[in-house]
Amino acid sequence: MQGPELPRSDAQHAMKPPEVITAPARLRERIAAERRGGQRIGLVPTMGALHAGHLSLVDAARQDCGVVITSIFVNPTQFAPGEDFDQYPRNLDADLGLLGPAGCTLVFAPSVETMYPAGCETTIDVGGVARSLEGESRPTHFAGVATVVMKLFQLAPADAAYFGRKDYQQTLVIDRMVRDLNVPIELVICPIVREPDGLAMSSRNAYLSPEERCRALALHASLRLAEQMCSRGERDAAAIRTAMLALLAESDITPEYIAIVRDGTLEPIDPVDGPAAIAVAARVGKTRLIDNLVVR
Amino acid sequence: MQGPELPRSDAQHAMKPPEVITAPARLRERIAAERRGGQRIGLVPTMGALHAGHLSLVDAARQDCGVVITSIFVNPTQFAPGEDFDQYPRNLDADLGLLGPAGCTLVFAPSVETMYPAGCETTIDVGGVARSLEGESRPTHFAGVATVVMKLFQLAPADAAYFGRKDYQQTLVIDRMVRDLNVPIELVICPIVREPDGLAMSSRNAYLSPEERCRALALHASLRLAEQMCSRGERDAAAIRTAMLALLAESDITPEYIAIVRDGTLEPIDPVDGPAAIAVAARVGKTRLIDNLVVR
Repeated sequence: MQGPELPRSDAQHAMKPPEVITAPARLRERIAAERRGGQRIGLVPTMGALHAGHLSLVDAARQDCGVVITSIFVNPTQFAPGEDFDQYPRNLDADLGLLGPAGCTLVFAPSVETMYPAGCETTIDVGGVARSLEGESRPTHFAGVATVVMKLFQLAPADAAYFGRKDYQQTLVIDRMVRDLNVPIELVICPIVREPDGLAMSSRNAYLSPEERCRALALHASLRLAEQMCSRGERDAAAIRTAMLALLAESDITPEYIAIVRDGTLEPIDPVDGPAAIAVAARVGKTRLIDNLVVR
Repeated sequence: MQGPELPRSDAQHAMKPPEVITAPARLRERIAAERRGGQRIGLVPTMGALHAGHLSLVDAARQDCGVVITSIFVNPTQFAPGEDFDQYPRNLDADLGLLGPAGCTLVFAPSVETMYPAGCETTIDVGGVARSLEGESRPTHFAGVATVVMKLFQLAPADAAYFGRKDYQQTLVIDRMVRDLNVPIELVICPIVREPDGLAMSSRNAYLSPEERCRALALHASLRLAEQMCSRGERDAAAIRTAMLALLAESDITPEYIAIVRDGTLEPIDPVDGPAAIAVAARVGKTRLIDNLVVR
């Protein structure tokens, strides 16, 4: 017999579509009830348009937790004016069709008005870790991310929250916030999920034309090249960057940044003498893509 | 027989000195255990140097809650350089002597290093409500307050938190933050407690010389004058302000601000045709004092 604190069996969750909740009060009630029942609760914050990367987070949550909550909310405050908030893909029905078989118990899909009622003005600034790289290209982005994630952590007080490593700097931002504000939640960072040809899964890949989709492979290829150079003993960050730039240029891509940093930080590492994260951001056509990889 | 969710009897709490906790992990354990026992938990955030105003908050918490936690932490981030962080009165033993008989169950008294370990950079900005009045005189103050209160709310997840009305704008700042970040805590705002002669209780009153202590009475007197004018039918905010300024001038006090606002907001109200909060801030000697009062 399975105790109440153990994850539900696959058979059990596969048969039940997730309950969709839009009201915070209902969400709190459901979570309180599950908690009273001894369930460990996992939260997977998403903006919907789910792909295998998101589902890997749900799967990781399901391994650890009896109750898996996926939030689906395209958060306006993390988009700057002129970015793709309006175009961002939204398809709740398709998302729900994926989440049921993946083992998600509850879906929290609030409206913008529910999350940001009139008068809402509070923002969270995590400091230096939000300033460089993505923060330079998108100066208001991480305040929007930190604030909405904190709201979700309060609305859905889970034991653990699951984020993808593809958004490397975002994972550092959220980790900083959770530590600094003493949020009682465990962060679980899951590996990047890639298409068979190496492209990192992203909801924004849907924006790419066939020609752009092909050129976009250069991002991962440039990271693989860096990895190969490191494994052959290259330690010079400038040499690695130069080689990456050359490879990207072949696909007519000029990156917004190539960062070679000590893994788990944003500190530049040169020589590359320990675990390093190499991160790249670039526009392919009008679509902004990011990717990263760890070298040891 | 008393159920576990009822407040403890006076006899029960008077005999037990509060347990003093400095480690967050221990605090979480204790709160989780009390919660499992069905206790409602009240939090009274303070900076110590306790007076009857603080004790009225503990008393209010004890009326509602089986467990009352008082935090004692002189929060450096809400003091600007040159303010009185170093001089701020600290006397944990005296505070504990007051808290036991008042019915406080637990005291959380962390060190600055515990609350702000190296690398801590996250701050919370609640927007417009933090900008005027106190925010003009003390531009970094409310970010410090909001951030430490959020940290305390995460460290000591209470059902209700108790704050004094003396810090009127602070109550609006915290209310804004709690709403905007969906913090699952009830805020209880308690009335100002005054000395017999009308001076609002404040830990900073200890800074006043006998002569300053006497002049400081003009703050409350100016508020009482405003109240009398309103009760006699005066509706002109400018006339009320002028009369208050004249009365304060008699005690050689030039206020930093006199605010006449719709109660529960910082919106100026003129004519004074509904419940209004009248707030005053002034230095008496080197000591900065604030006070306020509601007129209807």
